[in-house]
Amino acid sequence: MSSALNAKELLIRAVECDQVGRILEAQTLYTEGIGQLMQFVNGEPDEAKRKGFLTRIKEYMDRADAIKARINGKLMLGEVVSHVSIDENDTGFDYDQLFGKYMDDKTVEIMLEEPYMTQNYQYQNLIRFLELAATNCPNLKYFRLITKEYKDAKNPDQQETNLGQIKGDLERRNVTVYIKYEDSLHDRKIYLSNGYIIKIGRGLHFYKPANPMYSIGLVNYKFRKCLQTDVDIWRNSSAAS
Amino acid sequence: MSSALNAKELLIRAVECDQVGRILEAQTLYTEGIGQLMQFVNGEPDEAKRKGFLTRIKEYMDRADAIKARINGKLMLGEVVSHVSIDENDTGFDYDQLFGKYMDDKTVEIMLEEPYMTQNYQYQNLIRFLELAATNCPNLKYFRLITKEYKDAKNPDQQETNLGQIKGDLERRNVTVYIKYEDSLHDRKIYLSNGYIIKIGRGLHFYKPANPMYSIGLVNYKFRKCLQTDVDIWRNSSAAS
Repeated sequence: MSSALNAKELLIRAVECDQVGRILEAQTLYTEGIGQLMQFVNGEPDEAKRKGFLTRIKEYMDRADAIKARINGKLMLGEVVSHVSIDENDTGFDYDQLFGKYMDDKTVEIMLEEPYMTQNYQYQNLIRFLELAATNCPNLKYFRLITKEYKDAKNPDQQETNLGQIKGDLERRNVTVYIKYEDSLHDRKIYLSNGYIIKIGRGLHFYKPANPMYSIGLVNYKFRKCLQTDVDIWRNSSAAS
Repeated sequence: MSSALNAKELLIRAVECDQVGRILEAQTLYTEGIGQLMQFVNGEPDEAKRKGFLTRIKEYMDRADAIKARINGKLMLGEVVSHVSIDENDTGFDYDQLFGKYMDDKTVEIMLEEPYMTQNYQYQNLIRFLELAATNCPNLKYFRLITKEYKDAKNPDQQETNLGQIKGDLERRNVTVYIKYEDSLHDRKIYLSNGYIIKIGRGLHFYKPANPMYSIGLVNYKFRKCLQTDVDIWRNSSAAS
């Protein structure tokens, strides 16, 4: 019975999120709720009850499909609001200076597509990005990270442990976190629920290492040398929530 | 002969620095120049020449003493301009927020008395401080660090290597660096040549480690939990240069 109850709770929360425009979180909740309901149905011996459940599942699936269409609509690129070309060895670019002003109190959900999360500096870049969100987006409720799964040869749990730390930390700050692994992911993208989409050719990882290690730029990335990349910021055509 | 020439150059630069109010740098140059001249005198066989040199040395020593008195005067505490008590586990305090506004374009010289420079996080704190100086003090010309000498059991060159990296990096940015080891040092102090003195009970090292490592606050220290300490900022009584 607990599985059905849990499914019910998830689906009620999905509808609530949907109603207030938190569509990324609603999508996650519909998917999880439907998955749990499915499991429950499979164990239900009563044919009539099973049919009833299947009807409900079909309804929720339709809602989830509708949400998916809305998300895809929001991910459509609209007008370009900013374009910056960063040349090899340029300095002066940290995340705040590049796109901090687009992360604001209307940003309730963020989706980050960033294929590579495998090295210490990449987790640190993710933390830098999330610290900017924690500073600029007081109403953030949901963060979805899409990345490639990675099993380190010496420490196969490394990615799960590190991302688990980050997830736990954000959830203590009342931000729901959903991590999705997609092995075919290539493009980098940051979607903000206020209607802005940030596309950086190299994603968050466009900095060269500090050289030597203890030098100006170790911490403050405005002093760090960059790799060549382009930063395009779009406002989506279906407008902000 | 090269030693005498080098001494002459050092002492000419000492006088120049003295004249434009860069008294910390002048002090370093007088000390180094006098030291070199002494060595040269010891190798000079001609009695008359030696007497001539000794007279000059006496003159420079008098000037160095006068500078020392001026520096001591500037290190006298004057009026308190700010007092902040940081409680254990407080957050919200990075260097910029605590004392960034006192580091400005009138800051030409900085002296940092910080006894402990032995661990990675301590070098990183030093870099954070220097990045703030690089951001706020465009006219910085001289930085003096006074710290305890440290020989790591496994890696005895560690402190020299790390501080050497920092010195080299600042000198590429046209800031002269002088590192002085004082084993009896206890108190922490930051002296700015614009007349401000910053005293933090724990010096630069008043942060707790990030816990877990990958969490908000790893990079942005406004989110870091602090150790209990007091921050007092004084404006010295002999006023700014």
